[in-house]
Amino acid sequence: MEMGRRVDPIILEALSASSPPDFLSSLKYHFEAGGKRMRAALVILSCASAGGKIQNALRPAAVVEMIHNYSLVMDDLIDRGEVRRGKPTVRVVAGDSVSLLIAMYYREILDQIIQSCVRSTRIRKIAVRAMKDIIDGERLDLLFEQAERDEPYLESNRITDPSFRQYLEMIGKKTAALFRAASEIGGHAAKARPRVVDSLSEFGWKAGLAFQIMDDVLDICGSNTGKQVGKDVIEHKLGNSAILIGMRYLTDRKKAELLKILRSKRVPFRMARRAQRLVAQTPAEIECREIAKAYLDEAKQRLSILKDSEYKRSLMVLSDLVVSRRF
Amino acid sequence: MEMGRRVDPIILEALSASSPPDFLSSLKYHFEAGGKRMRAALVILSCASAGGKIQNALRPAAVVEMIHNYSLVMDDLIDRGEVRRGKPTVRVVAGDSVSLLIAMYYREILDQIIQSCVRSTRIRKIAVRAMKDIIDGERLDLLFEQAERDEPYLESNRITDPSFRQYLEMIGKKTAALFRAASEIGGHAAKARPRVVDSLSEFGWKAGLAFQIMDDVLDICGSNTGKQVGKDVIEHKLGNSAILIGMRYLTDRKKAELLKILRSKRVPFRMARRAQRLVAQTPAEIECREIAKAYLDEAKQRLSILKDSEYKRSLMVLSDLVVSRRF
Repeated sequence: MEMGRRVDPIILEALSASSPPDFLSSLKYHFEAGGKRMRAALVILSCASAGGKIQNALRPAAVVEMIHNYSLVMDDLIDRGEVRRGKPTVRVVAGDSVSLLIAMYYREILDQIIQSCVRSTRIRKIAVRAMKDIIDGERLDLLFEQAERDEPYLESNRITDPSFRQYLEMIGKKTAALFRAASEIGGHAAKARPRVVDSLSEFGWKAGLAFQIMDDVLDICGSNTGKQVGKDVIEHKLGNSAILIGMRYLTDRKKAELLKILRSKRVPFRMARRAQRLVAQTPAEIECREIAKAYLDEAKQRLSILKDSEYKRSLMVLSDLVVSRRF
Repeated sequence: MEMGRRVDPIILEALSASSPPDFLSSLKYHFEAGGKRMRAALVILSCASAGGKIQNALRPAAVVEMIHNYSLVMDDLIDRGEVRRGKPTVRVVAGDSVSLLIAMYYREILDQIIQSCVRSTRIRKIAVRAMKDIIDGERLDLLFEQAERDEPYLESNRITDPSFRQYLEMIGKKTAALFRAASEIGGHAAKARPRVVDSLSEFGWKAGLAFQIMDDVLDICGSNTGKQVGKDVIEHKLGNSAILIGMRYLTDRKKAELLKILRSKRVPFRMARRAQRLVAQTPAEIECREIAKAYLDEAKQRLSILKDSEYKRSLMVLSDLVVSRRF
């Protein structure tokens, strides 16, 4: 699945085109540090599945990938993230102030790439809506945190008892909105009919929900994912599918214990392990996997509007791999 | 000069239109906390001077004003600013994480306002170029700082002996680029001929340089500006017109003393006063005022292409007031 990497030259070229020489290597660092380009692959395969030329999808795919990375650099500032993709984050390498400027710069460069796309007005509207969603999803994710940040807005608006519906709204904005934008933009890059674009859009949305639900499950129940297990617990996040479903099954006493861990000022490894074990006593993992599978099945059904092709099959495989986190 | 305030309903309406109810008051706060709307007035009067309708300039003016405020909220994060316009900054009222999200949200809302402007493609190109310049100007401003931030990028790229040309490049990007964009966009809102747009654009550029040079002078030499005097010294900024010009006249010993102050980890009030007095021993203030006046005169000459009108006279008065900081 090297398809997504085909956006790299476009991104690096756009960064190089008009940037000050003494800023350039810092601007490039984040993209050169790796990344799977999963969302770029989604744009390209959505376009190709709808009968479009791959060549026409590359610039739109670069836009989607830049949106994702713009949000990652900002997220690392918010979460004081130190490692990403096994390497030091931009804020560690360059410093907080400059990494903020780098992310802001990405936002402008991505607009310049949009200007060079076909159907650019349409693509920009989708991109802007996705970015608004991502920003608001991040806000909700912060409101689902149960401790640590003593910031006035978060303290007065914290969501202490979220419903699964609220959780879906949060991950919809934080994650699925960009998956939706990716496949929708892919459809536009193929100049597909509105019905096809809509179907691709819904495919992306449901696949995105499935992806995030599984991402949460693997955080709590996973092993061998390469990620730090229990990170969400350590970060006080109640906005995690496995934790939320698990709580439904726990006795009042154990539920209170889990919440107490999430609300602790510091969550040492031992406490995070305890939280994981509490969730593991419930059918949360099985239930979340079922929910994710249902969304993924719905997603794939949306593709029935497309003619069978090698690309359509690749798109289905991609969604499987993405959700199972084997991409 | 209440003209600039006419953008407020547009900005508040755009923020309200599609924002989550529990986010809205935080989004509005920065705009409700005040601001002179100087750049909005510049757009509106540039449009009217070129024979355009004020009505057509309001949305473009809202765009320019949002760019400015987007950069202010980000700057306050970078500088840990606590007070702006006599009120607590967004980061104090909402917290750092959410104020970052608020600024990012402004960036998306301003794109939506651009979508609703006439000549929107042109306006967007100018806006994006201005934002890239502002970001890079902020980077240069940070590189001109002589101490405090131990951030890897800044430490390896710090500019310890800037020329006046480098200073002009920095303030050109940080400040004059948005003034230029404001009057250029005003020209486009008037659907003015290219020659008129170019003249307005150069008017804005030169007026912006004059404004920033005087802003720097007042920081070091001023009183009764309502701003904290010597803030640039306290913030270790060598990128200040009066300091740079003053250094030319100081003996080596006094120059070393001034640099030592700027390089001190903490600059107490007493040391900042000493730095001011060192600069005051030189003709820096007079010389800077002359340079600013020359730029302002050049700016106003650019307006000779426009027919005389009440609006043209107002635009000239506006540039006088802006540069003398009586706006």
